[in-house]
Amino acid sequence: MRKISGGVTSAKGFEAAGVCAGIRKKDKMDMAMVYSKTPCVAAGTFTTNLVKAAPVIWCKDILKNLQPKHAVVLNSGIANACMGKQGKEDNYAFAAAAARELGISPEQVFTASTGVIGQPMPMDVITAAMPELAKKLSDTADAGHDAAVAIMTTDTKPKECAANFSIIDEDIEITVGGMAKGSGMIHPNMATMLSVVTTDINIDEALLQEAASNVINETFNMISVDRDTSTNDTFIILANGLAGNEKIVKKDKNYDNFETALKVVCKSLAKKMAADGEGASRLMECKVRNAKTKNDAVVLAKSVVSSNLVKAALYGADANWGRILCALGYSGAWFDPEKVDVYLEVKSDDDDDFKLKLVENGMATDYSEETATEMLSQKEVTIKIDVKAGYEKATAWGCDLTYDYVKINGDYRS
Amino acid sequence: MRKISGGVTSAKGFEAAGVCAGIRKKDKMDMAMVYSKTPCVAAGTFTTNLVKAAPVIWCKDILKNLQPKHAVVLNSGIANACMGKQGKEDNYAFAAAAARELGISPEQVFTASTGVIGQPMPMDVITAAMPELAKKLSDTADAGHDAAVAIMTTDTKPKECAANFSIIDEDIEITVGGMAKGSGMIHPNMATMLSVVTTDINIDEALLQEAASNVINETFNMISVDRDTSTNDTFIILANGLAGNEKIVKKDKNYDNFETALKVVCKSLAKKMAADGEGASRLMECKVRNAKTKNDAVVLAKSVVSSNLVKAALYGADANWGRILCALGYSGAWFDPEKVDVYLEVKSDDDDDFKLKLVENGMATDYSEETATEMLSQKEVTIKIDVKAGYEKATAWGCDLTYDYVKINGDYRS
Repeated sequence: MRKISGGVTSAKGFEAAGVCAGIRKKDKMDMAMVYSKTPCVAAGTFTTNLVKAAPVIWCKDILKNLQPKHAVVLNSGIANACMGKQGKEDNYAFAAAAARELGISPEQVFTASTGVIGQPMPMDVITAAMPELAKKLSDTADAGHDAAVAIMTTDTKPKECAANFSIIDEDIEITVGGMAKGSGMIHPNMATMLSVVTTDINIDEALLQEAASNVINETFNMISVDRDTSTNDTFIILANGLAGNEKIVKKDKNYDNFETALKVVCKSLAKKMAADGEGASRLMECKVRNAKTKNDAVVLAKSVVSSNLVKAALYGADANWGRILCALGYSGAWFDPEKVDVYLEVKSDDDDDFKLKLVENGMATDYSEETATEMLSQKEVTIKIDVKAGYEKATAWGCDLTYDYVKINGDYRS
Repeated sequence: MRKISGGVTSAKGFEAAGVCAGIRKKDKMDMAMVYSKTPCVAAGTFTTNLVKAAPVIWCKDILKNLQPKHAVVLNSGIANACMGKQGKEDNYAFAAAAARELGISPEQVFTASTGVIGQPMPMDVITAAMPELAKKLSDTADAGHDAAVAIMTTDTKPKECAANFSIIDEDIEITVGGMAKGSGMIHPNMATMLSVVTTDINIDEALLQEAASNVINETFNMISVDRDTSTNDTFIILANGLAGNEKIVKKDKNYDNFETALKVVCKSLAKKMAADGEGASRLMECKVRNAKTKNDAVVLAKSVVSSNLVKAALYGADANWGRILCALGYSGAWFDPEKVDVYLEVKSDDDDDFKLKLVENGMATDYSEETATEMLSQKEVTIKIDVKAGYEKATAWGCDLTYDYVKINGDYRS
């Protein structure tokens, strides 16, 4: 298992492109496409919000048809949510325009949109840009990067990652690569995040969905920027089989390796999203250990990274551990408040973790506030919590709450 | 039913006081007492957080004993939470010091603390100030006001309210008056709020608890500043019977009138808390109408006032109704997104409501953004949501999310 540089074009046979169609701004790429000429099996995970954008409804729908999939077309600027019948028609036209350029049927094209809710897709602009987008398709790393840039909204950085591994006892290398966007409305269960992952593995479609669901629960669903779950969250994975491995049809060691590679890619993308949370200045990682049940561990870890008070304290580099205990206490998960230990951990220069125990059995240790403040001033801070109630663990990621979050969201539409 | 000016000393036979003990700051009143020489029946509601401060554990405990209650002693600055055995001992000493001055037993004295978690109560300072606090007890409005000021932490204003009504067919007037503090860590199910309400009604203790529980569910439990439910939330009501009415032992019309008066007082205190949310510049009221179940109505209304994105948009006076629909959609309550109507309402100068329909059947109307921005720039904004799914309703209160919230909470302890 190796992390490699790259993104959606790293796996064999995948092309991508990004163009500036001028959907909302004239000077930013805002349309992207990912394409495999070789037919793909596909899997996806989507927002749990009752209010679902038109592209989400579309993707869920075409996942059920038996046609091989070939492409994902994406745009930033307009979310195409809360637009009723017109939204559905516009979304179909979006898929159809892409399909026309690629010589396939619209039902073979996934769509994903992100941006302002409740405004119509400028279909003239979008349709006009489609030929250029298809023409730019390329399997270079630069083309993958363009696609990652084109889907950004308030993101400050494009998010890409790739990994590869070898099939056991065969001279075959499998590559998994992906891109994502998302920095606001990010909360458990798919927030305004779009992510497309591609792989050249040859795998059964049901197993692909299972791997995707497993991995997403431990990665994208464990990040929170603001507890607002969006209308547009979309994760799509395409597998075109070009690596040439014997088709994976059961959960063998090769399946396990694939799931691990997919997790490496998704975890990296998820952490990049949390670190790039709107206005964020720091990444917060919360590791809960020894919870009574897996669900308790998940709920406790998410509660800490979601707490506005913990997030604001992190911004101020204030070791206000009382707020951490408080967030654990109202999470709904069970533990004994008088048994909790809380640690801060940061990577030191020699890459060893430096650890500071703030709380032992529910009460403050005599830690140095100065050391704690110094640790909390790093770009990445880990809060480790031992609840001593069982054997389950979970890790969640979030960011601090800053003036800039308020600024960005106080006036997003203008 | 009349709202009157006043607070905890408005009802007959109640005295109060506030002093500056110097718990954390030298120049702010930080200890308060409410006292009735006449024995009282009492009721209370407390935090649902698993991590409970020592005074919360104490109050829940003494509510079960059969002794008549006489007093509440409160402090700001230190929360006395997460302090283990020492916290419990300090809290007992706090009650005992007050009891000594009043010539009663500690088990007749409720305690309430608010402030920093995880630091010890400075018992020398507190004990030293107790004689002065007891000596200052007085039934004047000023004394009640002092108590309301003494419990403030990041509150910018003291919060008091009183109301009275007449017993049917008798020349007897019942008064209900109270005070509250709270502006951060405020979320459904009793956030860091302390509230003491007094009344001179003669009422059965179980009915007093029932009235309190009913009213709190519709008032204090419907406000949210930051979704953080604190370790110290406390609501206590004392009834000394001095009004001289025939004891209320069943849910008759007089009981109903009492519950209404209590609701008037608690609703006013709750709204004052929401409006004074940390850093808040506006009060947000969210009225949900025609939900399928009462619980759906509550969940929907709370989801809107709790959404960071809605709160930030309110700060920017941006009519970003997509975020409102989004918050409804992820709340967990059921509705049809294509049937929702959303209105803005503000009080106009002649006290009539001015209404603007933003969304009809899940899609934007052609409302004027200019008018919407003007309405959202008021000090009090009502968002009314008709989900057309049934007949139940609920109202929740919150505030906008501002730079100052981040500033206050980024560096609270220093």
